[in-house]
Amino acid sequence: MPQFLDTAEPGFEAAFRALLAAKREDAPDVDATVAGIIADVRARGDAAVIELTSRYDGLDLTPETLAFSAAEIDAACEQVLAEDRAALELAAERIRAYHSRQLPEDARWTDATGASLGWRWTAVSAAGLYVPGGLASYPSSVLMNAIPARVAGVEHLVICAPTPGGVANPLVLLAARLAGVDRIYRIGGAQAVAAMAYGTETIAPVDKITGPGNAYVAAAKRRVFGKVGIDMIAGPSEILVIADRDNDPDWIALDLLSQAEHDQSAQSILITDDAAFGRAVADAVERRLLTLERRDIAAASWRDFGAIIQVRDLDEAVTLSDRIAPEHLELCVAEAEALALRIRHAGAIFIGAWTPEAIGDYVGGPNHVLPTARSARFSSGLSVMDFLKRTTLASMTPEALRAIGPAAERLAISESLEAHGLSVRARLDRLNEG
Amino acid sequence: MPQFLDTAEPGFEAAFRALLAAKREDAPDVDATVAGIIADVRARGDAAVIELTSRYDGLDLTPETLAFSAAEIDAACEQVLAEDRAALELAAERIRAYHSRQLPEDARWTDATGASLGWRWTAVSAAGLYVPGGLASYPSSVLMNAIPARVAGVEHLVICAPTPGGVANPLVLLAARLAGVDRIYRIGGAQAVAAMAYGTETIAPVDKITGPGNAYVAAAKRRVFGKVGIDMIAGPSEILVIADRDNDPDWIALDLLSQAEHDQSAQSILITDDAAFGRAVADAVERRLLTLERRDIAAASWRDFGAIIQVRDLDEAVTLSDRIAPEHLELCVAEAEALALRIRHAGAIFIGAWTPEAIGDYVGGPNHVLPTARSARFSSGLSVMDFLKRTTLASMTPEALRAIGPAAERLAISESLEAHGLSVRARLDRLNEG
Repeated sequence: MPQFLDTAEPGFEAAFRALLAAKREDAPDVDATVAGIIADVRARGDAAVIELTSRYDGLDLTPETLAFSAAEIDAACEQVLAEDRAALELAAERIRAYHSRQLPEDARWTDATGASLGWRWTAVSAAGLYVPGGLASYPSSVLMNAIPARVAGVEHLVICAPTPGGVANPLVLLAARLAGVDRIYRIGGAQAVAAMAYGTETIAPVDKITGPGNAYVAAAKRRVFGKVGIDMIAGPSEILVIADRDNDPDWIALDLLSQAEHDQSAQSILITDDAAFGRAVADAVERRLLTLERRDIAAASWRDFGAIIQVRDLDEAVTLSDRIAPEHLELCVAEAEALALRIRHAGAIFIGAWTPEAIGDYVGGPNHVLPTARSARFSSGLSVMDFLKRTTLASMTPEALRAIGPAAERLAISESLEAHGLSVRARLDRLNEG
Repeated sequence: MPQFLDTAEPGFEAAFRALLAAKREDAPDVDATVAGIIADVRARGDAAVIELTSRYDGLDLTPETLAFSAAEIDAACEQVLAEDRAALELAAERIRAYHSRQLPEDARWTDATGASLGWRWTAVSAAGLYVPGGLASYPSSVLMNAIPARVAGVEHLVICAPTPGGVANPLVLLAARLAGVDRIYRIGGAQAVAAMAYGTETIAPVDKITGPGNAYVAAAKRRVFGKVGIDMIAGPSEILVIADRDNDPDWIALDLLSQAEHDQSAQSILITDDAAFGRAVADAVERRLLTLERRDIAAASWRDFGAIIQVRDLDEAVTLSDRIAPEHLELCVAEAEALALRIRHAGAIFIGAWTPEAIGDYVGGPNHVLPTARSARFSSGLSVMDFLKRTTLASMTPEALRAIGPAAERLAISESLEAHGLSVRARLDRLNEG
């Protein structure tokens, strides 16, 4: 059973704070190991990557077989059932359509002084996407990471996906092909991150690395940050559902369980203004847990981190939701659109009972890589912007420099940066001569 | 004297690679000290901050005097010369005008299935800006950090600025007032970063911390990243000037020196297609170094990291510039606008000889907080976007769910996430009943 909280109870604030502060993940400290792996890959390149892949994945590679060949990818794609392929294609198309709208515009204008100002967006040249092996090898994540990169205009896009024992997920290879990935390396762990950041004889270095991974991958991403760009370091998944009594408790139970089944550190919270509805959802969760394939994981998550919070009204729900700053927020209430407008901190909002969060994981269109652990207070989900950067532009005319140069010179002097001031003064003097 | 390189020489590629790889900064490892300071501030709040400020800044504070009072700020602002105030006001106005154009638009649309999709931008609620004490206490940086936050709509904006021995820079206080900062705390170092990230009895926690600082501040920002958002960890400043023979060598020398004078780890590079012009600039630098106030710093930077690169033509200059991915790029060539369009990786471009980089440091309008150390390959300068985050929106109609739900269910099953699939299936079944 999850925690039951009630805002009308005197102990609520303390209990809610404890819920917010709950440490759901105890990542092992693998930093020293990872530092050694990165140093090894930097020093020995392919040889280190091959040796580490043999040790950790039980897979013996050569420089020639580090990447899947086109024939291998063809063969894997042919194994995919037509129905699965159609589903992936629909997802790819919808994700592409959504993200294409994110392309920002360049700007350039001339102000009253005659100065021309603006900015220009350009794509990162090369990006690398990490795809975990084993159970968490999700083809949907390949689409969610690779398509925004392609839409942004990234020229060289590679994947590293470990294949322990040599077993690859055909759907991952098909998703990579649909997304237009250039190369797929069958390597993983910190060695894959190091190879993408620093390059080896066979693997060209990239400028940005995204994608989820285990503690080794996360530690490696933190370490190479600065040498290359990285996306966020994702924590366990979360959902907050705000639902009124006019919902089917079973639907809401399944929505809560669709986060809980990810990971026993995942968190599912229901906020409702109806106590009886809250209990009905709790009962529905228990019923579903009897048969769910991943019931052990889901039950542990629901027991340890799940919560049902009873509020007096939906105003309270909005306030609590913004304090939680959930990764996923489902609004299953009568005036869901109006409520959505009042929410300030959330990675993604799913509006209305016909929009289960799982739609957003696959085919909705928006990205499913979203800020966890309350970081929606200050960060956004993955987007085309993560693969773009902006160069600012400024061009002065002599007249513009005459208008604003003296202020720059003055500020330079006040900051004791004489050469800054002189670089402006030398030009102003020329104008005054002329 | 700086290095002279020539793309026509056989050793060029190796020398250029060495220039790119030069390690200009040896940050001391203060991570353990910083971890201790953060833990102390989390445990003891104000008491720890006050004790550390007494120890490191020689300044004895109480909870009541942690922040400057309005009267203290008034008094400081009155000390500022009218000419300095006017220059700061002009800078603030131009920075505000430029950044106001960066506000992104929300989007919402309905696709062919009837699904309503979109996103909404919201501001970070509270932001904290670190302003170094001593020599690097730049009022211009206060404007460059605080104004984008205010333009974004940040509600609560604070500054931490150490005042060793109690000495404050009146221009910093005036800049903070002009930018609309709410509170200015006279604390610094890792203790200030910890106080902003975790809060104390007196200091409310913020969601995002930006601004430059020393090794302690940088280490603290890395450590609190995740709990709060941070901007980039800036390295020493850099400029690349691409100039042809039709320039005054003295102007270009001053532009190179205006980076070199920042820091002996700064880097100034000239690329020119005219060897004689390159030598003339080198001579002009030497002449200016005879009298420059900060000649010791500038001379060390120019000697250790400066370079003059001779190219055969401007095509080569573009290629080399993109490999350098400079923080600041000045284009002093005949067809500067056309050349700017060909540049892909640069933090900021200053187009034409009437646009010295120093204009951009103060009054141009674009931000002067820019990606260093080749990170313009994957990141952008500070902007309004750094204080905003995007929430994605999705709302399905029953018809939309009927159209795309089966694909989501299919993909969920292929990823062994049964509850995901069931959450969609339960709704589809209802539709089929109806």
